[in-house]
Amino acid sequence: MGSIFAIDQQDSSCSARTGTLDLPHGKVSTPVFMPVGTNATVKALTREDLKEIGFDIVLSNTYHLYLRPGTEVISAANGLHNFMGWDRNILTDSGGFQVFSLAPFRKITEEGVKFRSHIDGSYHFLSPEKVVEVQALFGSDIQMQLDVCTPWGVERKEAVRALETTSLWMNRAKQAWETELAKGEYKGLFFPIVQGNFFKELREESAKRVIDADCPGIAIGGLSVGESEELFLEFLNYTAALLPKEKPRYVMGIGTPEYILGAIENGIDMFDCVFPTRTGRNGHVFTHKGCFALKKAENTLNFSPIDEECGCKVCRSYSRAYLRHLFKAQEILCSMLASYHNLYFLNDLVLKARRAIGENRFLEFKKEFLGRYEQSEEKI
Amino acid sequence: MGSIFAIDQQDSSCSARTGTLDLPHGKVSTPVFMPVGTNATVKALTREDLKEIGFDIVLSNTYHLYLRPGTEVISAANGLHNFMGWDRNILTDSGGFQVFSLAPFRKITEEGVKFRSHIDGSYHFLSPEKVVEVQALFGSDIQMQLDVCTPWGVERKEAVRALETTSLWMNRAKQAWETELAKGEYKGLFFPIVQGNFFKELREESAKRVIDADCPGIAIGGLSVGESEELFLEFLNYTAALLPKEKPRYVMGIGTPEYILGAIENGIDMFDCVFPTRTGRNGHVFTHKGCFALKKAENTLNFSPIDEECGCKVCRSYSRAYLRHLFKAQEILCSMLASYHNLYFLNDLVLKARRAIGENRFLEFKKEFLGRYEQSEEKI
Ligand SMILES: [Zn+2]
Ligand SMILES: [Zn+2]
Repeated sequence: MGSIFAIDQQDSSCSARTGTLDLPHGKVSTPVFMPVGTNATVKALTREDLKEIGFDIVLSNTYHLYLRPGTEVISAANGLHNFMGWDRNILTDSGGFQVFSLAPFRKITEEGVKFRSHIDGSYHFLSPEKVVEVQALFGSDIQMQLDVCTPWGVERKEAVRALETTSLWMNRAKQAWETELAKGEYKGLFFPIVQGNFFKELREESAKRVIDADCPGIAIGGLSVGESEELFLEFLNYTAALLPKEKPRYVMGIGTPEYILGAIENGIDMFDCVFPTRTGRNGHVFTHKGCFALKKAENTLNFSPIDEECGCKVCRSYSRAYLRHLFKAQEILCSMLASYHNLYFLNDLVLKARRAIGENRFLEFKKEFLGRYEQSEEKI
Repeated sequence: MGSIFAIDQQDSSCSARTGTLDLPHGKVSTPVFMPVGTNATVKALTREDLKEIGFDIVLSNTYHLYLRPGTEVISAANGLHNFMGWDRNILTDSGGFQVFSLAPFRKITEEGVKFRSHIDGSYHFLSPEKVVEVQALFGSDIQMQLDVCTPWGVERKEAVRALETTSLWMNRAKQAWETELAKGEYKGLFFPIVQGNFFKELREESAKRVIDADCPGIAIGGLSVGESEELFLEFLNYTAALLPKEKPRYVMGIGTPEYILGAIENGIDMFDCVFPTRTGRNGHVFTHKGCFALKKAENTLNFSPIDEECGCKVCRSYSRAYLRHLFKAQEILCSMLASYHNLYFLNDLVLKARRAIGENRFLEFKKEFLGRYEQSEEKI
């Protein structure tokens, strides 16, 4: 299998780079922010909205879709693209993180993970092989291995055990993926995940094993799990530096401008987060001067847009006063418009970052952007 | 003031007719179904959606907007069109019906109505003049008089009292409207309302007074307030027949295919209802063969559209199986798509009714349509 990733430009002052992913449903420029469509839809947006903003790839959640509507429905629909009517790329996570954060019960063995559904309490068992098969049935353009994610603050012993299981599962998952490819229909790519919690030597060991597996791309897991921003950046930087430059690098669960720019600086190419849509539904919106809550009284008679500098259709035609009213009246349109704006804003941020890298001035751009952004009236 | 209404075609077999309303924000073909945007938005739809479907007029609620965001905000926005970003026509009701159905307290005197807000419990007083001023401040293209609406089943005495107050308020409101027009900026039209409950001689008396007032159009109120479909049609027919042919006739709160076709047959030109959007948010959708609930198990593996005969963008690209999944997962997109389809369906029904009137075969069309529609698997 040839490389799916080409680096276009490398910033000389840091690890930031631009590149192109060549995926089954088209090319994707990096760095790229991927919006999250947990239940086979990005919440409160249509696919026309996503295309209008310019997304070439969305993320969807294996855990949720496996439980509901279930593999039978998605198989009968001929895969997830057909089911949700999205003809661009889809990355699916492995469900590991959701089993650990949402299921009311789970038990990990070497074989896999037994858990109860948070929806109806039913019992399920997922092995690394099964998770590959499910994602292949979905037709995921990029699928992730089942891994064991530990929160910040666990003891070394537990981090070692999680790492060992993750490694074992990686090898079995990789083999299962090769079996899927060999059948000839499925073309999706497979990314293993670096774990190791906040122990540098464990990160090193995990990275070594992942590199040895020689897969199309590499994910860095186990970050953004409760640690401080400093620790996050330290471990992101440390882990990213261990990885081969020529492979695309993906960090899960990053969705604020600060974290996104920090990740890009450290050579990360792909990231995703529910944050912009969730926060939008809660009436919080991004601007170049920081975030604010639509419901604030000072917006009552403010007829300017969310962000004068934003070119999105929401900012071109709706006022803060109107959006505040919609929020107070609990109108669905508020969720629709705030989510749209927030995703547009983050995509625009990434476009600007790409441009800055092309001009070899990423660090300068980051400083300028955050200098204004961190004047923020409030932190969400 | 010249007439705002021209009859284009009259069906010879019944009272159905097509026509054109000439309103401040453009012409509107009749019969017309007006979607309801209670809080200055049609729920779960963008104005682009409304234009795509083809609506030239929407309804908004004076009671709701008066309480929230309030007249200060809408005045500062230079009116409701600007506030909500809608450059076509807006009809506003007077708020009377909402005061009677939503406010936790109200007291009617000859002067007007005192009531408590259902939002924050605050006390307010609205007179017929004040309601005209509020709607003029909104910039309503068609505004309604404040009236007293009585439910089905009240005694004659109460119906008489409501009628007398409604008549008194009509005259004061008309004068207030003329005062607004005389100021030179406001161009909106004023419709008085025929009341009289389910007493034919009261309907007659009310119609007489409304006709004498000689306003641009006439609304028939006090229907669809708990009575049977037979009684509804009987009184609709009776009241409509009392009205001059040359004036546009509006009946409030009609939103099912059966009621819409019944109204058109009786010479009604305009109607509105929250039904198609509310029922859509509840996962119920219209088809040419009747309504059904998306959540039904039989849709689990059904990859056909909601309605094979519907040309809307939802039916062109989303399956029942996907919509059922969205409904079960409580995704906002389900409300967006089901509301869109239901409004498209009703607008399309009205377009077909217009065409049938043009071909002088409305009754035949109605029979054909309802013959298939009433095979319905279920009644909502
Ligand atoms: Zn914007
Ligand atoms: Zn449709």
